[in-house]
Amino acid sequence: MKIIVDGFGGDNAPGEIVKACVMALEEFQDLEIIITGQTDGIKACLEKNGYTGSRIEIVEAPDVISCEDENPAMQIRLKPNSSLVVALNILRQNEDVKALISAGSTGAVLSGGFLKVGRIKGVSRPALAPTLPSKDDGKGVVLLDCGANVDSKPINLCHFALMGSIYYSKMYGVENPKVALLSNGTEDAKGNELTKEVFAMLKKLPINFVGNMEARDLLSGKYDVVVSDGFAGNVALKATEGAAMFVLKTLKEKIKSSFSAKIGALLLKSTFKELKAKLDYKQYGGSLFLGCKKNIFKAHGDSKAPAFLACIRQAVKAAEKDINTEIELALEKLEIEE
Amino acid sequence: MKIIVDGFGGDNAPGEIVKACVMALEEFQDLEIIITGQTDGIKACLEKNGYTGSRIEIVEAPDVISCEDENPAMQIRLKPNSSLVVALNILRQNEDVKALISAGSTGAVLSGGFLKVGRIKGVSRPALAPTLPSKDDGKGVVLLDCGANVDSKPINLCHFALMGSIYYSKMYGVENPKVALLSNGTEDAKGNELTKEVFAMLKKLPINFVGNMEARDLLSGKYDVVVSDGFAGNVALKATEGAAMFVLKTLKEKIKSSFSAKIGALLLKSTFKELKAKLDYKQYGGSLFLGCKKNIFKAHGDSKAPAFLACIRQAVKAAEKDINTEIELALEKLEIEE
Repeated sequence: MKIIVDGFGGDNAPGEIVKACVMALEEFQDLEIIITGQTDGIKACLEKNGYTGSRIEIVEAPDVISCEDENPAMQIRLKPNSSLVVALNILRQNEDVKALISAGSTGAVLSGGFLKVGRIKGVSRPALAPTLPSKDDGKGVVLLDCGANVDSKPINLCHFALMGSIYYSKMYGVENPKVALLSNGTEDAKGNELTKEVFAMLKKLPINFVGNMEARDLLSGKYDVVVSDGFAGNVALKATEGAAMFVLKTLKEKIKSSFSAKIGALLLKSTFKELKAKLDYKQYGGSLFLGCKKNIFKAHGDSKAPAFLACIRQAVKAAEKDINTEIELALEKLEIEE
Repeated sequence: MKIIVDGFGGDNAPGEIVKACVMALEEFQDLEIIITGQTDGIKACLEKNGYTGSRIEIVEAPDVISCEDENPAMQIRLKPNSSLVVALNILRQNEDVKALISAGSTGAVLSGGFLKVGRIKGVSRPALAPTLPSKDDGKGVVLLDCGANVDSKPINLCHFALMGSIYYSKMYGVENPKVALLSNGTEDAKGNELTKEVFAMLKKLPINFVGNMEARDLLSGKYDVVVSDGFAGNVALKATEGAAMFVLKTLKEKIKSSFSAKIGALLLKSTFKELKAKLDYKQYGGSLFLGCKKNIFKAHGDSKAPAFLACIRQAVKAAEKDINTEIELALEKLEIEE
């Protein structure tokens, strides 16, 4: 299997990215990786990691799209020689390249994916689909859309639900994953104009739709897939992140202010480590841009090698499971009136 | 000053509600409280708390609207003799009654407030405005709307911003509180159709509008007032609650699984208590239904006496500051084109 990696996307590129690629080649014996970016920089990183094999191909791309660059859609046009755009073009043109992974600007990855690679036939809008920690079995919950479409139509959310259900089922081996609709209450009648319309449509889809849910239950483990418009989904994701960070930060401050607490914290060191690991959603890899013709994974911008490796693992699995073909087939069978 | 309390709203009514009232009378020497509900039950609670004074008046109301009752708006019509509706009627009819506090069904309090008490002149839609913990100075952040209006128009959000700014400024003594718009990114161009339109309008209002914010920063202390449509605001509020609960629950589980962690946790007992206290947003009282002609506070359904007392304190302060008159004056001066 061949995948392509944006070698110059993210805060720790190219060092941690290349390191993760080398680790992935050790793990997957039949994997080949194309890395795009400044050849010299990538070569130096390969040397540093002692890699001398032939399963990595470097494709020169002198430019970089940075997270600070404004208007990511424009950057895709302005920087045809950036590591991201070069990677997107190769992904589109080569059938044997099965997935792309980038830790670069989310906006650029989404715009680039949409413009350069395009949608699966029948998908109105692709959605950004991260996995968040929830259950103890490590399966997590997939929340989509998290911001690819800030203004969504009912048909979009139906596609999100169907795609999310297939994705979850294939990736985690769960039959009939529980799909919920993000709302302002659990009762059937709750919701805004959009979700009320979507609610009725989801009931008719060939998925295990379990009804409305409250954002309070996002991490509760009650649901496998949570469907939302991109605006509310983004709010849910970021509020969750912010609150978790706030709790940990407050705890840290309180510990610092007392001597006995400091001793207690020493005894809890490994517990805190486990807690952090459980909360770290980078463990699940990145966010799939679900609905694109080919799998594009957005790794977290601050990914170090282990997080990026988790994302490569996810990409390999998604390619093996041929999720996109499944989605295309499911959409062909689907009859929704827009 | 006279206020009215729904004696039979919430999980711990009437016991904790009446107890909080007795505590409030000790704290505020010029306060008088009307309590609505089943007279015998309230009398028994007063006796239990050793109250024999004349500053509590009981108004009989045999019925109760429960949180389990469906269609809260309908309940307001179906149960005219409920403790909530009787209280709302007294609030509306008596100028000397300055505020109402209920720990009952949020939907019923909102519907009842809207139908029975009505809006401040010029306010298109009132908004549910809780205060969340954020800063160390105990001032918190006011988030509105949190669910009174799931489908909001740009003009509604402008009113939320103005009302929130006045509320914050009067309640916390902060001049020109920082008002932010909840969005999917901090850049000016971020947002959905609604927030983009609102963004331009907020720039023209006589408030300290500091731009878009991400849900990640809700508790960061960077902002005083956060404006949102009721759907996304509800999602932000509940995702925050859910994530904080998830972190504490996970920590508890991890501690249980290790002996040294258990010892450490003992040493951290008071730290954990402080942490919980800081996260407990009941410390700030309840959520004001901001924009109603008279102050209606929704206390948390599971409020015990201290939380309900905090809400009474908040109601007394809001009445002293005459927030509603300030809002009416500000709206008279305002020129917004709908």
